Amino acid sequence: MNLPIDADRLRADIEANAAFGRVETDDPEANARTNRTGTEANRRARERLVDRLREADLDVAVDAVGNVLGTWTPESADPDAAPVVSGSHLDSVPEGGIFDGPLGVYAALEAVRAMRGDGFEPDRPVGVVSFTEEEGGTFGNGLLGSTVATGELALDEALALTNDDGETLDEALDRIGYRGGDGVDAATPTDADGAATTLDPASWDAFYELHVEQDTKLEDAGATAGVVTTITGITHCAATIDGEANHAGATAMGDRTDALAAASEFVLNVEAAANEVVETASPSAVGTVGSLSVEPNATNVVPGRVEAGVDVRDVETESMEAIVDAARDSLARLERERGVETAFERPFDVAPTPMSDRLREAAHEAADAAGREAVDLHSGAAHDAMRVAGVTDSSLLFAPSRDGISHSPREWTDWDDCAAATEVLAGALARVAVDE
Amino acid sequence: MNLPIDADRLRADIEANAAFGRVETDDPEANARTNRTGTEANRRARERLVDRLREADLDVAVDAVGNVLGTWTPESADPDAAPVVSGSHLDSVPEGGIFDGPLGVYAALEAVRAMRGDGFEPDRPVGVVSFTEEEGGTFGNGLLGSTVATGELALDEALALTNDDGETLDEALDRIGYRGGDGVDAATPTDADGAATTLDPASWDAFYELHVEQDTKLEDAGATAGVVTTITGITHCAATIDGEANHAGATAMGDRTDALAAASEFVLNVEAAANEVVETASPSAVGTVGSLSVEPNATNVVPGRVEAGVDVRDVETESMEAIVDAARDSLARLERERGVETAFERPFDVAPTPMSDRLREAAHEAADAAGREAVDLHSGAAHDAMRVAGVTDSSLLFAPSRDGISHSPREWTDWDDCAAATEVLAGALARVAVDE
Repeated sequence: MNLPIDADRLRADIEANAAFGRVETDDPEANARTNRTGTEANRRARERLVDRLREADLDVAVDAVGNVLGTWTPESADPDAAPVVSGSHLDSVPEGGIFDGPLGVYAALEAVRAMRGDGFEPDRPVGVVSFTEEEGGTFGNGLLGSTVATGELALDEALALTNDDGETLDEALDRIGYRGGDGVDAATPTDADGAATTLDPASWDAFYELHVEQDTKLEDAGATAGVVTTITGITHCAATIDGEANHAGATAMGDRTDALAAASEFVLNVEAAANEVVETASPSAVGTVGSLSVEPNATNVVPGRVEAGVDVRDVETESMEAIVDAARDSLARLERERGVETAFERPFDVAPTPMSDRLREAAHEAADAAGREAVDLHSGAAHDAMRVAGVTDSSLLFAPSRDGISHSPREWTDWDDCAAATEVLAGALARVAVDE
Repeated sequence: MNLPIDADRLRADIEANAAFGRVETDDPEANARTNRTGTEANRRARERLVDRLREADLDVAVDAVGNVLGTWTPESADPDAAPVVSGSHLDSVPEGGIFDGPLGVYAALEAVRAMRGDGFEPDRPVGVVSFTEEEGGTFGNGLLGSTVATGELALDEALALTNDDGETLDEALDRIGYRGGDGVDAATPTDADGAATTLDPASWDAFYELHVEQDTKLEDAGATAGVVTTITGITHCAATIDGEANHAGATAMGDRTDALAAASEFVLNVEAAANEVVETASPSAVGTVGSLSVEPNATNVVPGRVEAGVDVRDVETESMEAIVDAARDSLARLERERGVETAFERPFDVAPTPMSDRLREAAHEAADAAGREAVDLHSGAAHDAMRVAGVTDSSLLFAPSRDGISHSPREWTDWDDCAAATEVLAGALARVAVDE
């Protein structure tokens, strides 16, 4: 059951999509695009997807937060059976790459086209989904469309989110014609009162997301596809260290409470704690102080305040807690030893999310059948598949990504690799779309 | 020979000057003012000074960079003798305090008024000077007026400096009526060709600057006045550390080149080197990483680049070099051990400046005669007296400053302390204004 992936058709879709929000750069190896929610580029990317879904005879729905779903319900399928769905997102970070997101959306569509072309007869409908604002930064913190669809964020709260111009998500989607409901040229799911609502991933039988890896494990292994075992949990912590701003010339070394010197110990303590967890408990653990803001941040003033942003992830909750505890301990020690005052908050915390064993198995079977090498790995990055996993069986597959570069115009996946990974995706979808 | 300082008159002058550029804050203990070169506040502060100089019968000159000099030449004085001059500056940092600068200008004027009131008969003219833009940040890097007047910066280069609006210093001074020369209601020094030029501190017999301490040594000692032995040398270094920006979740700990972790070691290495010099060689040495900028500075991205600003000062050149060498060594080690690339520049470097022994002695004699306690100390901050020391005998005196706070609306010197320090200044000036 190998499906005939059309590598050129897939490439044409991704390249056409890359034109929406394309950013010209001086770098000949760069392919930059900026595709943010509610922009004209975003509207055109959605419009082209809808057109392509319809060309392939899928029924299109646009939900109340702009998520787009195309559904293929051939005669073989029970239209009331829970569908098998695959997809990702079309938005990008500012000056991001062209594969992060679009590969997963158009690979899903290519899988359905391959099924149709091959006369494949699924027992269930097969869906292709594009979630709104996975990247965040315009209206939300990321995974926006899937977070609302899986009930983790209320629809009205999401629609009230604003962009930098003060426009709400509701207004922005309406402006570009993708706020599901009246006036949108597509079906929209409705609630019991007939009001526009979101897609319901809980009603799906299974969800697959194909995404570029953003790391080099596949490249290093020479593998075609990664089958994610667990999406790491993520905690973001905000540490504040208050010392005393003072004249750098007139304040003797012994009279200082230097917030930056204290923060430097903190950064190194977090790094050391993560390294220790990697060596002793969980190789996948990471701890990063990614941001540091210094006040007043003048060469000739002893720093008075530092705010640090900490990112901690792992597939094991215990490992994450060990790193977070070390960060807290570091601050407590700095209060004692350096006389600084500190504060610690943990504004964002998501537990590790295991992927569905059933769907992982199907992916491996598909890879084997296609003669493609698939390897198990974890994902250190969050994806919409993480949200969907909260309500139904969910699986995340990776395609190799050159040098692991992502969120960059230099992100790149070879077209052959795109097609090969799509072949694995299609095989997996086909397997779960037929009843045992 | 104690001169009758009028504490109320001095206070009235400083309070009146504080109104120019006054910034209202919620803090009842705050006295904030923003007085930057070329602003209306700056014009009014200069205008009031000129008026007060003339009220006291001083002849006023405005030079080509806006430095203001009032000269008292009583009958007792040889008008051709090298004058004794005292003063400081009227400008401030944004939301700075009301004493930093103005105390030194109005204390000098009060000293002359006290001499006149007391019938004191100097052998030399006595001058009161206000230098343009001591603080820097608008047109220059600080000490602007004294740097030009002492020949360390060419007049035409200084006049071509621009503010954030692109206006030159020349244009700004002309606009507020303080670009010496035609159209200014005061004498202006001229060069051999008759062109407007600057004051010539090299032609002064002596220069005294009274300034708030910006540290707590006087407060701790319960002393009235500080007599500066040496103004520390200052070096500013700029260190750049390049690592590799990467996804904080998808990049394993072992695969990182984290620029911020490397920079944290650098910060602690500089601190440790300064502490070591303090313990083993020179207690006055300081080393500060005051600024740190992280790119891309996002919690979920491994930092790719850090730029750090380092400030090193001491009364001994050797100690400064030891700290700068340690900073360089730290970067070389980080290149080897962490694989970062680094760069190191030293854009600003001024050697330690000893103050005149003759003038220090006169200050101590004046303090003794007035029954005031004066202590020797060094200055970690640069002042106009540092530039003047390059061309003639120069002395820097300090008044106590509460908690050592400066460049802040909470900077404060008690009015009694202002008057007591002014009494010491006046006594010192009187001593050097008469020939032995």
